[in-house]
Amino acid sequence: MSFFPAALDNLVEKFASLPGIGFKSAQRLAFYILSLPEGDAKDFADAIYKARSSVQFCKICQNLTDSDECAICRSPSRDEKVVCVVQSPKDVAAIERAREYNGRYHVLHGVISPMNHVGPDDIRINELVDRVASGGIDEIIMALNPDTEGETTSKYISRLLKPFGVKVTRLAHGIPAGASLEFVDDATISQAIDGRQEM
Amino acid sequence: MSFFPAALDNLVEKFASLPGIGFKSAQRLAFYILSLPEGDAKDFADAIYKARSSVQFCKICQNLTDSDECAICRSPSRDEKVVCVVQSPKDVAAIERAREYNGRYHVLHGVISPMNHVGPDDIRINELVDRVASGGIDEIIMALNPDTEGETTSKYISRLLKPFGVKVTRLAHGIPAGASLEFVDDATISQAIDGRQEM
Repeated sequence: MSFFPAALDNLVEKFASLPGIGFKSAQRLAFYILSLPEGDAKDFADAIYKARSSVQFCKICQNLTDSDECAICRSPSRDEKVVCVVQSPKDVAAIERAREYNGRYHVLHGVISPMNHVGPDDIRINELVDRVASGGIDEIIMALNPDTEGETTSKYISRLLKPFGVKVTRLAHGIPAGASLEFVDDATISQAIDGRQEM
Repeated sequence: MSFFPAALDNLVEKFASLPGIGFKSAQRLAFYILSLPEGDAKDFADAIYKARSSVQFCKICQNLTDSDECAICRSPSRDEKVVCVVQSPKDVAAIERAREYNGRYHVLHGVISPMNHVGPDDIRINELVDRVASGGIDEIIMALNPDTEGETTSKYISRLLKPFGVKVTRLAHGIPAGASLEFVDDATISQAIDGRQEM
């Protein structure tokens, strides 16, 4: 039995359904909403509704956008011959922040993960194959996370794209910038030695 | 510069404005909202709006309610001669869960705290004095937290209510149920000795 008004209980329940938010935190957030001026609470509600209803997938690269095609796909100054394949829109943001890359993207929205029942058809691989098949792409850069699932997905995609004669590369693995060699893990050091380059 | 659609950035910003939610968590929550079916996202938005617009203060006890008077103040089976004074609606819920108390409540929505610029007029003390002044109340039970601010507020209210001839009590302080004496702090043990009762 609850001792709060039903509308408050309902809001607590909604907050508690968010990932990483427990019941006590949900209660704290719901009370915070009650303490807001009514206009601010309405703005919050509108922000949720608008984000969900206006944000869609770019029909070319599958990144999040509020129009049919995202700003990167529409930009004439980006090299359309190079496509960087990433797991999520957050990775696009990470690569863009580095200001090093001037090609296009393809967002998979996941990686192949049999443990989590995610197969090749559950992520946007077919859309990538279609892009490559329709021509005009010289290089695909795989930029998935360097874990088992990322590696598996990279290899799977690489094999799928080989018949189209496109060059498939992947981000270099090695010692991160600014790291102390002493604290770098063994796997990273092994990869850095394997991938050593002539100076 | 952001690399996400404006509506998504706006939602991240809203989540980040909540207490205890940092930027990374806000981003995670916003992405979760995007992953929901559109109906569920709309329900979430509605829950926020409805909670803020429908929940109000009971005009008698100042507890949260969705009508003019709360269920406890409306209930004929609750003893209206005893009023338990608490800091927040969460404390009403805590006391109700114990199923021991059958009187009414008064919610102060805060405690006097000069450090945080909260004076007697910033919390619902005047409403309590008005209730007592209008008669029919025999006992006021102070149930504020046993910290400096709670004690100060209890004493302040107790002095205000004395002229009305009402009995003012407070919750017993002592060893909590199920505690190991070994691990109970000194202040609590002192209070338990002070308040010892004949068996």
